[in-house]
Amino acid sequence: MAEAVRHDKTARQLRLLSSALDSGRLGPVRRLVNTLSPAEIGNLLESLPPGKREVVWGLVDAEDDGEVLVHVGDEVRESLLAEMDPDEIVAAVEDLDIDDLADLVEDLPDTVIDEVLKSMDRENRERLEQVLSYPEDSAGRLMNPDVVTVRADVNVDVVLRYLRLRGELPDHTDHLFVVSRRHQYLGRVSLAALVTHEDSTPINRLIDDEQPAIDVGESADEVARQFSDHDWISAPVVDDNNILLGRITIDDVVDIIRDQAEHQAMSAAGLDEDEDLFSPVRRAFRRRLLWLSVNLATAFLAASVVGQFEGTIDKLVALAVLMPIVAGMGGNAGTQVLALMVRGLALGQVGASNVRTLLWKELRVALINGLALGLVLGLIVLLWFHNVGLSLVIAAALTLNLLFAALAGVLVPVTLKRMGFDPALASGIFLTTVTDVMGFLSFLGLATLILLR
Amino acid sequence: MAEAVRHDKTARQLRLLSSALDSGRLGPVRRLVNTLSPAEIGNLLESLPPGKREVVWGLVDAEDDGEVLVHVGDEVRESLLAEMDPDEIVAAVEDLDIDDLADLVEDLPDTVIDEVLKSMDRENRERLEQVLSYPEDSAGRLMNPDVVTVRADVNVDVVLRYLRLRGELPDHTDHLFVVSRRHQYLGRVSLAALVTHEDSTPINRLIDDEQPAIDVGESADEVARQFSDHDWISAPVVDDNNILLGRITIDDVVDIIRDQAEHQAMSAAGLDEDEDLFSPVRRAFRRRLLWLSVNLATAFLAASVVGQFEGTIDKLVALAVLMPIVAGMGGNAGTQVLALMVRGLALGQVGASNVRTLLWKELRVALINGLALGLVLGLIVLLWFHNVGLSLVIAAALTLNLLFAALAGVLVPVTLKRMGFDPALASGIFLTTVTDVMGFLSFLGLATLILLR
Repeated sequence: MAEAVRHDKTARQLRLLSSALDSGRLGPVRRLVNTLSPAEIGNLLESLPPGKREVVWGLVDAEDDGEVLVHVGDEVRESLLAEMDPDEIVAAVEDLDIDDLADLVEDLPDTVIDEVLKSMDRENRERLEQVLSYPEDSAGRLMNPDVVTVRADVNVDVVLRYLRLRGELPDHTDHLFVVSRRHQYLGRVSLAALVTHEDSTPINRLIDDEQPAIDVGESADEVARQFSDHDWISAPVVDDNNILLGRITIDDVVDIIRDQAEHQAMSAAGLDEDEDLFSPVRRAFRRRLLWLSVNLATAFLAASVVGQFEGTIDKLVALAVLMPIVAGMGGNAGTQVLALMVRGLALGQVGASNVRTLLWKELRVALINGLALGLVLGLIVLLWFHNVGLSLVIAAALTLNLLFAALAGVLVPVTLKRMGFDPALASGIFLTTVTDVMGFLSFLGLATLILLR
Repeated sequence: MAEAVRHDKTARQLRLLSSALDSGRLGPVRRLVNTLSPAEIGNLLESLPPGKREVVWGLVDAEDDGEVLVHVGDEVRESLLAEMDPDEIVAAVEDLDIDDLADLVEDLPDTVIDEVLKSMDRENRERLEQVLSYPEDSAGRLMNPDVVTVRADVNVDVVLRYLRLRGELPDHTDHLFVVSRRHQYLGRVSLAALVTHEDSTPINRLIDDEQPAIDVGESADEVARQFSDHDWISAPVVDDNNILLGRITIDDVVDIIRDQAEHQAMSAAGLDEDEDLFSPVRRAFRRRLLWLSVNLATAFLAASVVGQFEGTIDKLVALAVLMPIVAGMGGNAGTQVLALMVRGLALGQVGASNVRTLLWKELRVALINGLALGLVLGLIVLLWFHNVGLSLVIAAALTLNLLFAALAGVLVPVTLKRMGFDPALASGIFLTTVTDVMGFLSFLGLATLILLR
């Protein structure tokens, strides 16, 4: 199901666009691009190779430039910014919401940042500085200081008059926040309550003070968790003294959830979630070299185990033919346990209180699988090599390695997490190192003990 | 970052709960559980092993039962339903929103479904039947028929009077839908516009008719794409004649996005995203056996390649020691390309128009990586085995296998997708089969040609 997201429409646009680009007719390309939302344009730019990407970027309406920059990954953003001169960048970003601007600002050249700050009025500049003063991936960084507040001691008609005077509300305003004289957060009133109650209803009868506010220091992940546990559209952000600082809206939360998911999928393969599909060869090469070098080191560890048994293999070459099966099956079985554990850790469902129960369950599953697959494997090996001893050895080695795989699949991510590392990133390498080493060791070791004595 | 989601709070609750459960004091457990939202209770139940899970489920307030059932995975849901008698189930689900009920109904026993249908009034029963008539994972199945509609030819004060009479609005109502006399969808009016305009403003001045409606047959994935591209909170669903049928809200879309992400991460390891962390051993065994059997078959394919070179290995045992390195490095490099491609396909960023460019880029990255890592590998092998020929052969074989890995990493998922399969599920097996087979073949083949002649 996942693979179909965006597919139909974007792929169709991409085809149209590509053929228009290839034909060199830029008029149709411009018209096509500017029917799209900024998020769609961003997605389209990410799917274009360098060359075409710059051409299309030049055709995007200047007024959409800022929003498009917000919607692309870091690497692609860098490639787009490289095509703009400072004036264009300032014009593109100066009208963005404060939270989006805060998100972009670190990727901008210093001279441009100065220009942007100069172009803002004092209030907005101070707001931006405040947002930037919070650490990345914190609620403070995600919030938009632009909120609509009301007082508890007025009636619905006063609020409606105020809103009519004020005019347009910030995007995704589903609630107004009720604050005290000192701007402390007291609760919230939904627009739905405002429009379904009589003019004379006092606000303090409509106030919902049960939903907690978000603390400005909370992590982005915790913010996402709260939004999806409570089905919020927007939520207030407060400081330690309960002073209302801003609000976070669901659109930013959806972005966090998408980023988390990409991070997990990409980092399992040792990639950065911001990696550009078309990143320059030199850059892609350097980044992947690092990951492959780590893998090379662990591969040598496994090879050195095999090296200890050169004499054994020399006497029975069939062992060399069969040993990758034992190691590989362990890796596959362990990866399944690992995937389940990494998800459980990400959801907070795995902790000290249930690791032991999980390990016990996985060891039992591994034992039964080992016996079942060992039987099949043993029979095939018997038919292939007509050697009963070899057949028994491989069945036993497979069972052993599946047990080691379960052990590593449960304990490696839990241990990494406890040590403060990201289990999504590093567990895979550790796991396959364990299953390779233990696979070769158990198979060749048992063979040495049983077959060659 | 991803691994921290939910972690802090849920893990803390889990610890508290576990120790309360262990001590047998159910009073504190009940109090703790019932301070949580249904989504949080669901998450907690998923993290409890059987036994404890049933105890805690028995302590959940009956009025939350339905919402909790909506928030857990299929397997866990089944285990919870098994603990309830038919009356309890009917009481739990009869007050759910139509879209949530439609989501649950297939997991309920037939007798319970009859009871639930009997307990509903005719209007709701017809609505449920309508929703159920659309295919799973379509917009029709996601929609809630409970919408608030207005006419275009009235003023704001008429609408406000109507809403005050109507009372409470459905959750996540950020827009009212404007329909014709024949209930055709004309556009939408935001609550924000209602509260910021004078009583005398005509609705047709506030109408936003630029946002397209969702077609009832659209896929859930396409719905999710549109929501995140346009930052919607809710969107209208229409049939082929543009008749308004219902609306979809962001909370359901967030669930789709989470499910897509889980699907991708879990299916890469051959798991179902609904797999219960604590699914019964027998069930877990059976499901994983299938996956491991497929892997066993591909492992034999690779082993049979090695089997062709028994004579070569017999003459130079070092080949057996080193061959897993060549195969394994190909697998790792290919997995990186694969992760990038699966994401690109999921986002619709990869298609016929750019596959060739991508393949060319990945082949160049693979060539440079192959030469760089081949040099390192060759030097280490030279120091280890003092055999210049062997060192040259392994460097060449590694480079060749990385090229095959890039080829498979790009073409396998694209081909699977084109054939209608899910690239997230099956690509990994095909890829490692290619890199194992080609790794062994190139290394042992080159060794046979060069070292043994």
